[in-house]
Amino acid sequence: MERQDMILNLHGESPSGANITVLNAEEAFLPTLFTLHTRFPKLRIILEHCTSAAAIEAVKTCGPTVAATLTAHHLFLTVDDWASDPFCFCKPVAKLPSDREALLRTAASGNPKFFLGTDSAPHPVAAKRGGSDGKGKTAAGVFTQPYATQLVLDALELGCEKGVLDAQQITPEILEGFLGGFGRAFYRSGGAGSERITLRKSDETIIDILSREGNSVEVVPFRRGQNTWSVSWV
Amino acid sequence: MERQDMILNLHGESPSGANITVLNAEEAFLPTLFTLHTRFPKLRIILEHCTSAAAIEAVKTCGPTVAATLTAHHLFLTVDDWASDPFCFCKPVAKLPSDREALLRTAASGNPKFFLGTDSAPHPVAAKRGGSDGKGKTAAGVFTQPYATQLVLDALELGCEKGVLDAQQITPEILEGFLGGFGRAFYRSGGAGSERITLRKSDETIIDILSREGNSVEVVPFRRGQNTWSVSWV
Repeated sequence: MERQDMILNLHGESPSGANITVLNAEEAFLPTLFTLHTRFPKLRIILEHCTSAAAIEAVKTCGPTVAATLTAHHLFLTVDDWASDPFCFCKPVAKLPSDREALLRTAASGNPKFFLGTDSAPHPVAAKRGGSDGKGKTAAGVFTQPYATQLVLDALELGCEKGVLDAQQITPEILEGFLGGFGRAFYRSGGAGSERITLRKSDETIIDILSREGNSVEVVPFRRGQNTWSVSWV
Repeated sequence: MERQDMILNLHGESPSGANITVLNAEEAFLPTLFTLHTRFPKLRIILEHCTSAAAIEAVKTCGPTVAATLTAHHLFLTVDDWASDPFCFCKPVAKLPSDREALLRTAASGNPKFFLGTDSAPHPVAAKRGGSDGKGKTAAGVFTQPYATQLVLDALELGCEKGVLDAQQITPEILEGFLGGFGRAFYRSGGAGSERITLRKSDETIIDILSREGNSVEVVPFRRGQNTWSVSWV
């Protein structure tokens, strides 16, 4: 892959075992990330949907060929959220409040090694609720797709309200970089082209459920019923 | 309560907050346990359904007026189990593999400060699956009641198989104490009376679902479909 200049996209978690659970599976994988990066320093690697302060620090420590994505939902969630709500359960699981704060600060920092990767997973309600008889496992994944960019702004706003972030330092350039530019630069996929989105503060509400006429599958979006920003495509 | 010689039964968790989640809520409560015990040294206190190595150590540190109960299900579970299975989700949540091992060793130790308290919670399937529309929170609780004593033996057996426990050291006296005698002694509720249970190794299987004729409520038992010991009452 290094010779072909391909990008290695990693879901970075070690399997559960004697001392590894969903809580430290990402941190336990970081030595493997370092090994890969040391052996293949020119290989571009993305640690996808990273969730922990430890992973953020690891990616910063690596050279410029290593980047990471953050999801919109991990900017909101901690373990308490998914403990009792399957619609907040995904892998890697959301970690501690200190980890969420590290993700928020990173998203707002303008560091081009970190950019949005939604990992949006439109599992049907039934799959989130143990299948047809309700007795199976909960499918892992959070559905954010229609609101991905808006949710990032919601999360940053909440971070400012709670004093984790300083609104003055979050410039349009940082937002544009996190939502698109930093990723394009890392992928070397050229300029922004002519397509644009505009995000507006309005009184839009996230829908309760997504369904399609003539199709019984229903999907519950993350933060259903909450206020959010509005997006328009130009 | 101390003057009246009443027992204080505690669900020992601090509320979630900036640095407290379901993962450390029990450990965060332990200073309060110490304060209560110091102020009221003769007050009998039971730290109910304790789930962490830290809580076990705290109860050992206190005088003989402080005891704790362990549930059958916490002898099996870690965070990985309840992450994707609502029928393994309860409060306090199951913690790390090292915590589970501490609970197993304690149950098998013969220390009379620790005894079985089932905390069995027969939530209907619908409540474990987000209510009538499947979009609400997951009710916290694990249903073990028909199998409580049998599950303890299953857990100890598993602990022996995995090398956590030494089968030679688990005597009938230890089992009888953990399942009944230690609790009766702490409650000062007198001798065992004439009622007895007999536990036998057989090929019994835990039922898939508990329901009652003419009643639509269904409850899923912990470890449904797994082999277990058999119990008979004499």
